[in-house]
Amino acid sequence: MHDARSSDPTRVGWMNAYPPPVEKRILVSDASAYRFPQIRWSFSHYQELYPTRPIDRGIGPIRPIDLNLRDDLDAISFTPTGSNEPMRWEQSLDKNFTDGIVVLHRGKRIYERYFGALRDRGHHLCASVTKSFVGTLAAWLIDEGRLDPKAPVIEWVPELAQSGFAHASVEQVLHMTTAIRYDETYANPEADIWKHLKAGGVFPRSASDQGPGSFSDYLLTVVQSGSHGEQFAYRTPNTDVLGWILKRVANQSLSDMISERIWQPMGAERDAAMQIDTLGFEFAGGGLLAVLRDLARFGEIMRMEGKQANQQIIPKSVVHSICQGGDQAKFKPAGYSGLPGWSYGYMWWHAHDDHQVFTARGVHGQTIYIDPKAEMVIARFASHPIAANAQIDPHSLPAYRALAKHLLREG
Amino acid sequence: MHDARSSDPTRVGWMNAYPPPVEKRILVSDASAYRFPQIRWSFSHYQELYPTRPIDRGIGPIRPIDLNLRDDLDAISFTPTGSNEPMRWEQSLDKNFTDGIVVLHRGKRIYERYFGALRDRGHHLCASVTKSFVGTLAAWLIDEGRLDPKAPVIEWVPELAQSGFAHASVEQVLHMTTAIRYDETYANPEADIWKHLKAGGVFPRSASDQGPGSFSDYLLTVVQSGSHGEQFAYRTPNTDVLGWILKRVANQSLSDMISERIWQPMGAERDAAMQIDTLGFEFAGGGLLAVLRDLARFGEIMRMEGKQANQQIIPKSVVHSICQGGDQAKFKPAGYSGLPGWSYGYMWWHAHDDHQVFTARGVHGQTIYIDPKAEMVIARFASHPIAANAQIDPHSLPAYRALAKHLLREG
Repeated sequence: MHDARSSDPTRVGWMNAYPPPVEKRILVSDASAYRFPQIRWSFSHYQELYPTRPIDRGIGPIRPIDLNLRDDLDAISFTPTGSNEPMRWEQSLDKNFTDGIVVLHRGKRIYERYFGALRDRGHHLCASVTKSFVGTLAAWLIDEGRLDPKAPVIEWVPELAQSGFAHASVEQVLHMTTAIRYDETYANPEADIWKHLKAGGVFPRSASDQGPGSFSDYLLTVVQSGSHGEQFAYRTPNTDVLGWILKRVANQSLSDMISERIWQPMGAERDAAMQIDTLGFEFAGGGLLAVLRDLARFGEIMRMEGKQANQQIIPKSVVHSICQGGDQAKFKPAGYSGLPGWSYGYMWWHAHDDHQVFTARGVHGQTIYIDPKAEMVIARFASHPIAANAQIDPHSLPAYRALAKHLLREG
Repeated sequence: MHDARSSDPTRVGWMNAYPPPVEKRILVSDASAYRFPQIRWSFSHYQELYPTRPIDRGIGPIRPIDLNLRDDLDAISFTPTGSNEPMRWEQSLDKNFTDGIVVLHRGKRIYERYFGALRDRGHHLCASVTKSFVGTLAAWLIDEGRLDPKAPVIEWVPELAQSGFAHASVEQVLHMTTAIRYDETYANPEADIWKHLKAGGVFPRSASDQGPGSFSDYLLTVVQSGSHGEQFAYRTPNTDVLGWILKRVANQSLSDMISERIWQPMGAERDAAMQIDTLGFEFAGGGLLAVLRDLARFGEIMRMEGKQANQQIIPKSVVHSICQGGDQAKFKPAGYSGLPGWSYGYMWWHAHDDHQVFTARGVHGQTIYIDPKAEMVIARFASHPIAANAQIDPHSLPAYRALAKHLLREG
C-alpha cells in the first residue's frame, strides 16, 4: 500500500457503495479517517466526515485562470535531495502521493493534474497551509492598525492568563517564537498533537477521556517551557491562539474573514470551508478545505503583491510585510537540515534564496509554492503516508526548483 | 420562549462567542441541536453540526431572479383555520416561526424576508422538503425508462429482503402506500422516528445503544404491518428506501444527481449539501441544506412545467407525471382533516383544488408552495417549535391562499 498506485483510493474502493462493506469503511470514530492509506480518500471528503463552517465565495463570476498547458514539464529532470539518481517531474507526483497539482506561470495554468479521489471541483484538506491564510489575515489586521503585534496575547484572550501563552505577545505566536511544551511529532502516538486533535474532535476521544474537549479548552492546558521570543519552534497551538485573537479583533469568524477579504474579491472557484469543533471554534492550525485552483489563485495574488489583474485584493503593504519573512537566526536552532537559511514568519515559510521563494506547507505534502523570480506558483494537494515534510521535501523542493529554472530558461 | 421574537436566536445569542458560555451552547451530543428554541439557530447552521456531502452548483453564473418588490402584501388579511380572528400576512410570519420567505409572482420576487439566524446566502435545513427532490429524481429516472415503478424494491436493494419492504414495489415507496410499522409522531419520545434519526446520527446515541447505527441498517429493521398499496401513510423510511434505489439505478449519489440535473442547470445561488450518516448514506428523507432562493428557483421550474426561461431543465413529462398527484382515495384514510381532498404522490403534496396547488412540506414549516393558477411560488424556511404541519397549516395555507387570490385580483 505504500505507493501511490496501490493506495489509489478509487482503486481500493473506499466508501464506494451504499453502504460500503465493513473493510471499505472510513470512520472518524475508529480513527481510520486519519490513517494511511485511508487519508488518500478522507482528505478529499472531509465535509463528509466532520462538521464544517462554509466559506462563501459570493455571487460574482469565477475569475478564470487562463490556460496555456505545456507538455514539456513532465520530462524535467531533477535530483532528489540525498540521492544520486535523477528523477523526472512526472515521477515526483506519485512519489509525493500527489492528489492534485496546478502550476501557474505568469498567471497562466501551464500544468494541471488530479489523481485518486480528487477532482478539479473537489475540496481537499489544506492542513497547515491553513496557517498561512491565518497569518495573512493577522498581517492585514496589523496593517490596518487594529492589532498591535507587541500586545500581549491575553489582552485579546484573557482566558489564556493561566496558560503558557500568558506572557507571550501577538507577534510571538504569529512567528511561532513562543516557548511552549508541545510535541508535534506525528510518529509519536503520545505526542501532544494527538491530544490537541482529540480535543477538537479531529481524532476520536474515548468515553473515559478526561482531557480537554474543545480546541479552546486544549489551549488553556498548554504550558510554557523556556523563554518566549528567543527561537522559532513550529507549534500548531500558536495558530489556534492567533485565530482566537483574530476573531476577537475582527468580531468575525475566520470563515467570514476569508470569505469577505479573499474568497469573494478573488472570484473563487467554489465555496471553501473550515473544520470546527463542537463549540464552533475553527481549526486555524489546519482546518481549511478548498479546491486546488483557489489555492493557486491566492498564491498568484501573493506573488503579484496582492494584485489580481488590476484589482488590489490584498494591500501591497500586507504582502510586503509577509515577504520580509521571519528571523533566520531564530529559525536555525530548530534544525531543519533540508531548509538551510530559511525562516518562518507570518505563518509562511521563507527560503530567503535567490528566487525569493516563500511557501505555505501542510504536513502531508499540501503546498502553495511561490517563486517570484520564475513568475511561478505551484498549488499541490497530497496525502503522503508520512506526516512530515522532511520526508516529502527531498522529492518536492528540488523538483520545484528545477521547474523554476526550466521556466526561466525556456520562458 | 414560545414566540418568534423571544426565541430569536440572535437575541438569545446561541453559539455567539469563542467559546460560547455553557448555557449558550448547542450540541449534537446532548440533543440540544434538535430542541426548541435551539433549532431556531441550528437549522441555519447545520453543516456546523453534522457531516454533509456538498452539492456542486457548478461554474456557471447565478441565474438572477428579477426583483419586483411589492409593499401591498404585508397588509393582506386572512382567517386562520379554526379561528374567527382575521390575521395579517405579516403577522403570520412570526406566528409560523419563519426564518426566511420568498414569494415569486410570474417568476419575479415580489416579497423576500429573513429573520433570526438566516441570511439570504445562508443554508437552512429543508427537512422533508428534501423528499420532493428525491421524488422528482425518481419520476425522472422512471421517465427515462431506467426505473420500473412496478419493480419490487428488492430488485434494486436485495438487502431489504428480510425487511418490511420485501414485498413492496418502487411505486409504493414513491407514493408512500407501503404498510409498515413506523410511528412518526415527533411528540412521542418512543416513536420510531427517533430511533431512525439516532441510527443516522442526527440524534445522539447512548454508548449502550444496541440499535442500528446507520440509515441503511435502520431500514433493515422496519417491519411490514398490513397490506402494501392500499392506503397512504406518511412514513419517512420510504424516502430513504427510494434514495437507496435511486443511487443503485443511477450509480451516483443523490448529491451528484441533484447537482447535475437541477443545481447546475438552474444556475443555483450557492452549493447545497446533503446530511449523511457515518457510512456516507444520504438522508433522503430530510437531509437537504440549501439557500432559500434556490428552493424558489426549483419551485418556479416546477410551476413552469420544467422550464426556466427558454431552457427545459426538467423534462415536461416528468413534471406532468408529478402534477397528476397521488390517489385521493388512498390519502383520505390517513385523516389529515386540514388537507381535505389532498393526495401525496411522487413525494409531493397535492391539493387537487381549483388552483392546482402542489407543495413540498417540511416538519417545522419548511415549504415550497406552488400555485399555478395564481402564477405564484412561495419558498419558506421555518423552525416552528411543534414538529407537525397540522399545527402550522392553520396560519399558512389560508395565508397562501389569500395571497394567491390577492395576486389574481390585483395582478
